[in-house]
Amino acid sequence: MKKTLCFAAALLACAPAQAAGDDKTLAWDIVAGLTTEIGPRLAGTPTEAAAREWAKARLTALGFTNVVIEPFTIRGYVRGVDKARLMAPYPHDFAVTALGYSGATPPKGIEGEMVYFPTLAALKAAPDGSLTGRIAFVDHAMKANQDGSGYGPYGDVRRKGPAIAAQKGALGIVIRSVGTDAHRNPHAGVMNVPDGVKPIPAAAISNPDADIVARIAATNKPMRIALTLTGHAQDAMPSGNVIGDLPGRDPSLSPILVACHLDSWDLGTGAIDDGAGCAIVTAAALRTQAGGKPLRTIRVLWAGSEELGGFGGEDYAKRHGGEPHALAMESDFGADRVWAVKTKFAPANKALGDRIVAALTPLGIVFSAGEPHGGTDVEGIMTRQKTAVIDLQQDGTRYFDIHHTPDDTLDKIDPSQLEQNVAAWAAVLGIVANEPGPISGE
Amino acid sequence: MKKTLCFAAALLACAPAQAAGDDKTLAWDIVAGLTTEIGPRLAGTPTEAAAREWAKARLTALGFTNVVIEPFTIRGYVRGVDKARLMAPYPHDFAVTALGYSGATPPKGIEGEMVYFPTLAALKAAPDGSLTGRIAFVDHAMKANQDGSGYGPYGDVRRKGPAIAAQKGALGIVIRSVGTDAHRNPHAGVMNVPDGVKPIPAAAISNPDADIVARIAATNKPMRIALTLTGHAQDAMPSGNVIGDLPGRDPSLSPILVACHLDSWDLGTGAIDDGAGCAIVTAAALRTQAGGKPLRTIRVLWAGSEELGGFGGEDYAKRHGGEPHALAMESDFGADRVWAVKTKFAPANKALGDRIVAALTPLGIVFSAGEPHGGTDVEGIMTRQKTAVIDLQQDGTRYFDIHHTPDDTLDKIDPSQLEQNVAAWAAVLGIVANEPGPISGE
Repeated sequence: MKKTLCFAAALLACAPAQAAGDDKTLAWDIVAGLTTEIGPRLAGTPTEAAAREWAKARLTALGFTNVVIEPFTIRGYVRGVDKARLMAPYPHDFAVTALGYSGATPPKGIEGEMVYFPTLAALKAAPDGSLTGRIAFVDHAMKANQDGSGYGPYGDVRRKGPAIAAQKGALGIVIRSVGTDAHRNPHAGVMNVPDGVKPIPAAAISNPDADIVARIAATNKPMRIALTLTGHAQDAMPSGNVIGDLPGRDPSLSPILVACHLDSWDLGTGAIDDGAGCAIVTAAALRTQAGGKPLRTIRVLWAGSEELGGFGGEDYAKRHGGEPHALAMESDFGADRVWAVKTKFAPANKALGDRIVAALTPLGIVFSAGEPHGGTDVEGIMTRQKTAVIDLQQDGTRYFDIHHTPDDTLDKIDPSQLEQNVAAWAAVLGIVANEPGPISGE
Repeated sequence: MKKTLCFAAALLACAPAQAAGDDKTLAWDIVAGLTTEIGPRLAGTPTEAAAREWAKARLTALGFTNVVIEPFTIRGYVRGVDKARLMAPYPHDFAVTALGYSGATPPKGIEGEMVYFPTLAALKAAPDGSLTGRIAFVDHAMKANQDGSGYGPYGDVRRKGPAIAAQKGALGIVIRSVGTDAHRNPHAGVMNVPDGVKPIPAAAISNPDADIVARIAATNKPMRIALTLTGHAQDAMPSGNVIGDLPGRDPSLSPILVACHLDSWDLGTGAIDDGAGCAIVTAAALRTQAGGKPLRTIRVLWAGSEELGGFGGEDYAKRHGGEPHALAMESDFGADRVWAVKTKFAPANKALGDRIVAALTPLGIVFSAGEPHGGTDVEGIMTRQKTAVIDLQQDGTRYFDIHHTPDDTLDKIDPSQLEQNVAAWAAVLGIVANEPGPISGE
């Protein structure tokens, strides 16, 4: 890309663009392009396939080598018509989305008494059979934390709630969106389908809609809801990963793997989840080349089908599990600033870890104890190979305002915070990719 | 309501509730009830009719007298299916709403080249006939101002844009929403239908969707759009006003009219536009009764069909134009704090005006020169009778984030700012309703 710019522009204009403007806007250009030219890219769909072609072309144009699409198939979810209407005591049309792998209603929908549970624990405590012929509503309001730590416990309403309700006989389940905003935009996401449990129709309504339910529940008036969710799960849908390398000077050294995911939920355009991640890791990897090739190869993995269950990361680990990897990192938590770093290094790599922490301090990033998470798309390879892992933890305070909603659009990305991410990643990659000694997680 | 509370509760609990808690939560209770039990109430629809019955029952229960529904009919707009999809150069499904009185497309929609105009002025400058067979897009981004002053000029894209495009031969028109938010929620609103102009299909897309169009337009790639808008205008739809009085001690003195509107756009639940206004004027009117009846009657007008063109205010002026009114006020700009007051008084009422301004100062409200607007629902009576007018101007900084969108829900109301509104209105009404001398606007 720089070459193209240099040839196209006068040399005078080209030099400053290289020094600052070019790299600085590359991450933005990538996520703007992906969200504008492709948009939503639900795993297994033709738009995800179009995104793979887009990614392959883009990575190639940016100078990556060995750029390939590695196909695999998944059990996907084909969205249908999603409708939810409160029928009694007051009519309201809810802003609703089916959960991924929801059971289907008949085309005309189902209707039933809606039983209110303030929390997932209350649903769990309902006697067996008590929901027969009824539709459960779980009103479990998530709160925003900087580190995103609410997503585990609050997200369980979406992940586990449907199977719990099914086991108690429920016709269907509706949840308050797992999200921290106050907009009429529901939050999509997958539900677990445990063996032996037939998935029931399951949906999330927006927080303001859930507020209506909560206000009515407080009056103890009986509620009825009509639910139409005609989507269905489907096997053998095509998906795939896109990978590309920036080869290092020393092919005997194991590479650094940096990942993101290319698929997105279909309601928005996948800007913060996870176009931004692909933009950050790619721009940062390229930035390490500015002073010449580092010692180690940096491989970018734009994984497919993360949202439906980490299929891309699994496939990568299967295909490439025989090739040694030194270190794995992922960016999949939006585009707000990195505020903390967690590392997992072998004791022999302590000095390396210390250099990384020192390099991040000027960017306002603090060391955080505890195990790094890695990320869904690197989890397979990092656990198989016990690679070193670094988390550059992003500020998630507003992440769950937007996550999995129609609002996941480019305007939610703050260019200056996006650039801080690229700078942090480039600082880390510049160090680890030039480390001549062994790098390991244990 | 207070009496009921007193009879129902122990006397000990009743007294403090009267002094503070009762009045303080009444405005909230009204808007919570209206948005929860009724919800959207588009002018002319059965839900607007249900809202009138709700309002009549509520005003009666609150102790208003002569509570009546005054019916009239309107030319309404019946919403149909609204869809907009960018077909080229990249497919995108837009978050879209038809404008009120939009022309209808065939059920299968229309498709055409989309011609980009950055502003309404650019659309106006397009040569006659240059849009034949095409669909215009006007990308006129509104900015937020505290006083809402952007709504006049920016709103003209929605009001006048469709007729201008029609006169240049356009098949249809799509605009960037007249709104200041960044959510996938389009802003509804009426378009003007001048005599002799056949309305073309006209719609607004959300700001993030308009951003996509703008980014593509910057590349000069040709765009095509498919538009399906099946709603239609309909004559003789039933609407009506609800009025109620708090009679004053001296029936010879002309009353104070305080207004709001009961109808709302149908995408949200009409919390800030204008459930809050009805809550504020009603709670404030009742608060003036705490120390005994004021001299003058206070009449509340919950007007119907404001959104489609001020039908309620017109009907009120026609029916009641023969009865003298002293002063007219309206609350129709959300629920955020009052920050300025504008007055229109006859010179003889200067001292009265000064007392009002002085009473508002402790609430953080400053005097603002210039003509008060009054409001759509009092405009008819105030211009016919040259009544005195007071505007309690609310902070509109975030009003157009929410206005006419699905996001117009109860959670957008800040209870403490709502209460400041009630306090400001009650302060004003306490003064004017106890003014023994003549009150006039000129």
